[in-house]
This record gives sequence, structure tokens and C-alpha cells, in this order.
Amino acid sequence: MVIREGGTRHVVSAEQFSPSLLDELFASADEMGRRLQAVRPPLLPGRVMATLFYEPSTRTRLSFESAMLRLGGQVVSTENARDFSSAIKGETLEDTVRIVGGYADCIVLRHPEEGAAARAAAVSPVPVINAGDGRGEHPTQALLDLYTIRAELGRLEELRVVMAGDLANGRTVHSLIRLLSQYRGLRVTLAGPAQLRLPEPTVRALRRSGAEVREADSLLEAVVGADVVYQTRIQAERLSEPISEAGSDAARFRVTREVMAALPETAVVMHPLPRVGEIDPEVDSDPRAAYFRQARNGVPVRMALLARVLGE
Amino acid sequence: MVIREGGTRHVVSAEQFSPSLLDELFASADEMGRRLQAVRPPLLPGRVMATLFYEPSTRTRLSFESAMLRLGGQVVSTENARDFSSAIKGETLEDTVRIVGGYADCIVLRHPEEGAAARAAAVSPVPVINAGDGRGEHPTQALLDLYTIRAELGRLEELRVVMAGDLANGRTVHSLIRLLSQYRGLRVTLAGPAQLRLPEPTVRALRRSGAEVREADSLLEAVVGADVVYQTRIQAERLSEPISEAGSDAARFRVTREVMAALPETAVVMHPLPRVGEIDPEVDSDPRAAYFRQARNGVPVRMALLARVLGE
Amino acid sequence: MVIREGGTRHVVSAEQFSPSLLDELFASADEMGRRLQAVRPPLLPGRVMATLFYEPSTRTRLSFESAMLRLGGQVVSTENARDFSSAIKGETLEDTVRIVGGYADCIVLRHPEEGAAARAAAVSPVPVINAGDGRGEHPTQALLDLYTIRAELGRLEELRVVMAGDLANGRTVHSLIRLLSQYRGLRVTLAGPAQLRLPEPTVRALRRSGAEVREADSLLEAVVGADVVYQTRIQAERLSEPISEAGSDAARFRVTREVMAALPETAVVMHPLPRVGEIDPEVDSDPRAAYFRQARNGVPVRMALLARVLGE
Repeated sequence: MVIREGGTRHVVSAEQFSPSLLDELFASADEMGRRLQAVRPPLLPGRVMATLFYEPSTRTRLSFESAMLRLGGQVVSTENARDFSSAIKGETLEDTVRIVGGYADCIVLRHPEEGAAARAAAVSPVPVINAGDGRGEHPTQALLDLYTIRAELGRLEELRVVMAGDLANGRTVHSLIRLLSQYRGLRVTLAGPAQLRLPEPTVRALRRSGAEVREADSLLEAVVGADVVYQTRIQAERLSEPISEAGSDAARFRVTREVMAALPETAVVMHPLPRVGEIDPEVDSDPRAAYFRQARNGVPVRMALLARVLGE
Repeated sequence: MVIREGGTRHVVSAEQFSPSLLDELFASADEMGRRLQAVRPPLLPGRVMATLFYEPSTRTRLSFESAMLRLGGQVVSTENARDFSSAIKGETLEDTVRIVGGYADCIVLRHPEEGAAARAAAVSPVPVINAGDGRGEHPTQALLDLYTIRAELGRLEELRVVMAGDLANGRTVHSLIRLLSQYRGLRVTLAGPAQLRLPEPTVRALRRSGAEVREADSLLEAVVGADVVYQTRIQAERLSEPISEAGSDAARFRVTREVMAALPETAVVMHPLPRVGEIDPEVDSDPRAAYFRQARNGVPVRMALLARVLGE
Repeated sequence: MVIREGGTRHVVSAEQFSPSLLDELFASADEMGRRLQAVRPPLLPGRVMATLFYEPSTRTRLSFESAMLRLGGQVVSTENARDFSSAIKGETLEDTVRIVGGYADCIVLRHPEEGAAARAAAVSPVPVINAGDGRGEHPTQALLDLYTIRAELGRLEELRVVMAGDLANGRTVHSLIRLLSQYRGLRVTLAGPAQLRLPEPTVRALRRSGAEVREADSLLEAVVGADVVYQTRIQAERLSEPISEAGSDAARFRVTREVMAALPETAVVMHPLPRVGEIDPEVDSDPRAAYFRQARNGVPVRMALLARVLGE
């Protein structure tokens, strides 16, 4: 699938993004970052984006809305489409999308069910952007993650990446792995509690792409020689012991001062946020702690995407 | 009551709209539809509309907000004024309207109680637009319904209209009938389950206006020779059997492929939406299925209304 | 603490506002009031304000949003950050503020915990404006109260002010007293139910500032010779009898027609709103009833503050 070059304008899956499309998009995001420094003529005057969120995700919603407003566009928004819309009266997602697509120039959709974005795109009169559909995809998170690696390290090839935390359920991990595996020289170290391993099919696909894959028994061991540590949140209810409890299984996968001491000087620590106990707040002041810069990158990346989807 | 020509600027009831005012408004809505195709200088720069919704109605709210933004105005919004405002502290609607009227240049009010819009208009320092007040009125829905008939058929006189579904409780049915009965040559066929008949006083008022009124025992019988089928949602709890159940009373009033086969080629099917089971999704691809175009017309009609209420 | 002149740009406490800073701010608010009368070039084009509300306060939120939009800026908004954000996943206020500060150019924060605004300001990359933090402060309410007195009476010195209602818990009372005590010639009359007295330390601080303080046993007695009656809401659960019940303790502190008859012709009645039973609606039509004008002043005062915090 191609986004706008005569092809679809919907953004449903990270799989739509080839390295050459990513190059174009990231160059545009760089330009968008520069736009943020100064008042520029609006790029999308008079255009309206609808955020249609069937479950709350304040961070994602505000990031998209800020991006649209900074392009000179406008926003109509519903944060709890599930409880507060016609969904309560039994309306289908398809009907809602057809109607909202009559009011706005694009729809940013968040939905708890896997595949919802594809269903919406199939009937929408305007571009649909997937802002997370259950255990499915969250492609714009993967884009901003990849953009952050490129911005921090200056390259996307020959990377040594540690994937840490909940590798079983982390939607962002799966999407990012899919994008990274398009670049040569990738070496991935998996570092998470035994109950929360990366699914076997994903490991196999990663190996088929040519990447090296190994497992580590602790984060301290994993980060030696790494370029990127991608930490993720472990939901308490998935574990038998709290992650913060010293000696627990999960405690071996926290980012602490000791882990930072073992991490190369040129590496970065990332996290899709929110974090709970997986990164010690002491680490925040380390210049390699890139997670807040990563969150901030959501705005220029989404600006670039909206400009591409909605622009002339 | 007259809207802006030295008279009131509040929009409370469908009764405020005479055929000549409707003519003006619809010509303006046509122009607004053309505005949507291109970037035009904003008509209401610097003006702020407040949506004050005491019950959620995402569709109506987004349609109003999109209209205001596309005029170059701005929006402040509250979707659940009932739970989340000072209402919880015992503030009267009148006080809330006086205060919000100090922040915004007009108020779009949705309220569960009949007569709330008139109460708000009585004290508001800025124009109030009724976006539905309980079993009372929803005048802008009636305006977009009428506008859709005119846009689809090219006329408002000599119409044969089938009113179907819940004629007892359907607020939109009552408002639309009131507007239609101002035009000559109206013939109305009532087609709904026996428990959900149009109230007698409304039938009598319709007859007094000169309209022909008849009842039909099924939609299949009703649509023969019709220009417009106006279908409405039947709330399950009002019926003894599900509408989708073949053989049930309500099933005789669904829009199906068979009904479409009996409907003239030049007719249209409308529905205020959301729909549940009253229109078979197979019908959606029929060019006479006008309900999504109807929803879309909410934007230019509301733009025309806002421009009239707020413009110079 | 100084707002912008090389110093902090956060607005956390009423204590930040000296008489000379207040003079500048109020002159700017006067100018903003004139801006509202006409379309002017935007003062803050391309700037984005985030409202981050951990508890609902529709009035405060809409007032801030209207102010930002009328400056030509834009708004991203969350009305129930507590339930609907990452707070539910255990994210700290500090992390949320760091992230939202990456999306917007300033944060307007409402939080149920005292001290939350200072915590947010300590980590935020962008200015934080306190829109109320629990029993702590609500500085912009105090600013608009003071601005209203100046606008209505033309002066802030030599004032005789009656503070009425719940003086024990009224956050706005405490902040306003702090600002008023900076001006010479202040005489304060305290008039509230015995259970809801102004805390002793506040009374002592007031006296130390040079103000005269006395107590009155009823509002009727208190208002004689007053310039300002500042009435506040008494929450029913804090009293043993309803305030509206004649003969009750609280009934002696309602603003009624009799109280208005005893009040000087040049005085004003204020209330931070919402009111419940503390001001008889009959009083609304009295020209000295200034509470709705007071609410309206929230917009120009907040415009002045935003322009100062975000402007060049």
C-alpha cells in the first residue's frame, strides 16, 4: 500500500512504510520541526481533522491535535466515542465513520478492537489514520520511535537494539520491529521476564529478514555494546511480583543507574510512555535518556504525516 | 419570531422558519457548500461558539463545530455539562447560560428537558441555538432534512412523503412535518407499528394545513408513488418484538431490497441516523439511499445558520 | 517570583503579583477588553495552549480557552485527565507535564491536590498556569476578582470589603484577601456562619498588613457603608441547616432585597460563582449585582496573562 502517490491515503499499518517512503516522511518531519520554531503561513488552512477515540488516549490525541493545529488546520474531537456517541444506540463503526467523514477532512481513529482501522478505511470517504486498534497496530507510534532513533543516532542501519520489558503484549514493540527489520545489519537483543517473551512467529520473521536475534537474562547484560534500549511498560497484573521489588524476576529488567553505567556513551534509552517502575527517575537527567524527546517527536512526525495525507 | 432582521437571533423552534426565510437560508447553504470546495477568507474570524451539551450527541456536536471552524470561527466545547459542570453544584441552567454567554459569541445548547432552549434564550446575552431539548424541538435537524429534500428533488411543493418508523416519539418527524406543511400539495403517508402512531393533534394540524394524510399497513404498500421515504429509528424497548424479526409487526416497516424495488426511481430514502435495523445495509449502495448525504448536509446548513446569527 | 522580566513565567500563586505588576496586567486587560469589540490581528498566532484538568471545572476551562482563542492561539484540551489519561496507568503528574509540555506552548493545570501547580512548574519545559490546586491557590480567580473591583469602583485603595459566606474553606476568599492586603486603607468585615470562620492565621496576617478587621453577626449589619460585598458559596454538607431556611444561622448571610436596601448605592455585590442559595435571584436585576460582569472579566484578564506569559 502506498500513501498518496495515486494510491491509498489511509494509514492503517506500519507495513505501509518502505524505507524510501520513510526517508521522505522523515525529511518532512525535520522540516516540520523547524516550522515549530517560527510562525509560518499555515499549510492546511481551512482543513478539519476529527479525532474519533473509542477509548481514551490523552497523549496520542493531544499529540495529533497539536500537530494539526500547528499546520494551521482545525480539530473536532471526541474522547470517548464508545460511551458518549451513537455507539450506545447500536450504530456500527462503519456508519459512524461514514458520517464523521462527511464533517471532517480526515479521521484519526482509536479503537479497542484489532482490525477496526482497516474496517473504517474500507468505507470512509476521507483518509483514516490508525491511532491504535487494540492488539493490532499503532503505526504512528512506530514512526515516531524510528524517527527518534534516526534523529538521536543519525542512522537506521547497523543498529544494535535491546528490546526490553513486556515483549509479549507490547504493540509498539511489534510495530517497531517490523519497521527496523527493513534496514540491514540489525542486531536485536530481547530482554524481558520469562512470562512475557516475544511471540515465536515474530522472532522467526525477524530472523528471516536477516537480523541477528539473541536473548539476555538481564538488562545489565543486554545493554553492553547497545545503540538503543527500547524499554516498555509491564502491566502489574501480568506478573506474579511487582517489578520494583528487588530480587523479583522483573527487577532484572529495570533501567537503573547500574544499567546506565554499562550502556555505551553514544547509546539512547527510549520508552513509548507512560512508564511506571521500569525506568528509575534518577536516570531522567542522563543525556542518553531520550524518552521525553521521543514523545515530543510525535508532533513533527504527525505533522509530516497529516501534510502528506491532506496536502495538495 | 424572526431570526436577525431586527428580531430575535435565537433559534429555538422550527416554527421560526417561514418559506421565505427558508429560501434565503438554503440559498446561503448552497453557497456554503461551494465554500467547502476551496479555501476562502474566513467569514467569522475571531468569533467563538460554545457548545453546551447537557447530554452527549457526538454527531450533532461535531457537525456544529465543523460548521463553525469552516467559517473561520473557533469553538469551546463541553460534551457533558450535566456531570462535569457546575450543574453538579446545583447551578441553574440560567446562570450557566449567562456565564458562558460572557465567554462566547453564541451558545449551541443540547438539554434533556423540553423547553430548556427557550429558558436559555430568555436570559442569554448572546444568541442561543437549540440543538435538541428533550421531547421538544431539534430545529436544525429539521432544517437539514428539508434542505436535503430540496437538494435531492429540486422542489418542496407537491411532495408525496412517507413517514416511517417511530412516529409517536420521533422528535425529528414532528419538526419536519411542521416545516413541510407550509408547502402546498403535500401528501403524507404514515407507516409505522400500531403502538407508535403519530399523535392525533399532529395529524389534525397536518390536515388543517391542507395536506392529505393516509395510513399504510406496511412500508411496501406505502412507498408506491412516493417521492421521499423518511425512515426513523425504533427504540427496541418500545416494541414487544425485535424489528429485525421476520413476521414481527415492526419488520413490515423496514427498508429492504423489496421496498426499494417498489419505490420510484426518482425517490430518495432518508433517515436522521443513527439507524439500527430499520434500513438493510444492502440498500446503502442504491443511489436513492440519501441518508449519508443528508448527514453531510448538516455542515453547510449549520454554516448558513451561524453566518446569519453571528454575521454582520 | 516575577512573571517574565527575566524571571519565572509560571503562574502558581497570587503572591507573585505585586501592585506594580497588577497595574501592568490590568492595563493590558483593559486593552484586551477593547480587542474583544473588534477583529484585530492575532497576538499569539500558531501558539498552542493545553488545558490539563484533573478535575472538571467547565467555567474555568472555557474561560481560559476563550481567552486563548481570542488571542488568535489554539487549544488542546482534556477535561478529565484523572480518569482518562495515563494517570490511570500510574503515571506521575511530573511525567504527564513533561510530555504535554512537548506538545504545547503552555499548560493550564487544574488539580485536586494542594501544591500540584508548584510540582508541575518545577519540571515543565513550558509555562504552567495554576487554574486551581485543591485547597491551595486559584490565582487567576483572585486576579479577575481584583480586576472587577478596580473596573467597578475605579480604585483599589481605601476599600471597605465585606467577605461573606464560607470563609473557612473558600480558596478564592483567601487569595483575594492576600492581594487586597497589599493596598492601603483596607477595612474588612467578616460575615459568615460561626462554623465557617476565617482561619486565625489569615486574620492575623491581614491585621499585620495594616488592615482593619471586624466581624459582623449578619449580612444586613455588615453591608452598611461597604464598597464591596464578596459573597461565596456555602456547601450544604458543611452546615447543620440549609442556608435557605429562614431563621437558620446561614440565612442571616444571604444577599436579599433587604440587604441590598442597606447597601450603599455605589457598592457592588460579587460572587465567584456558582451560587446556590446565597444570593436571591431577585437581586440579579440590581445594577450593583456585578457577579456576571465579574465572570465575564475572566476572559480579558486571562488574555492579558497569556499574552504576558507567551508573548515576545
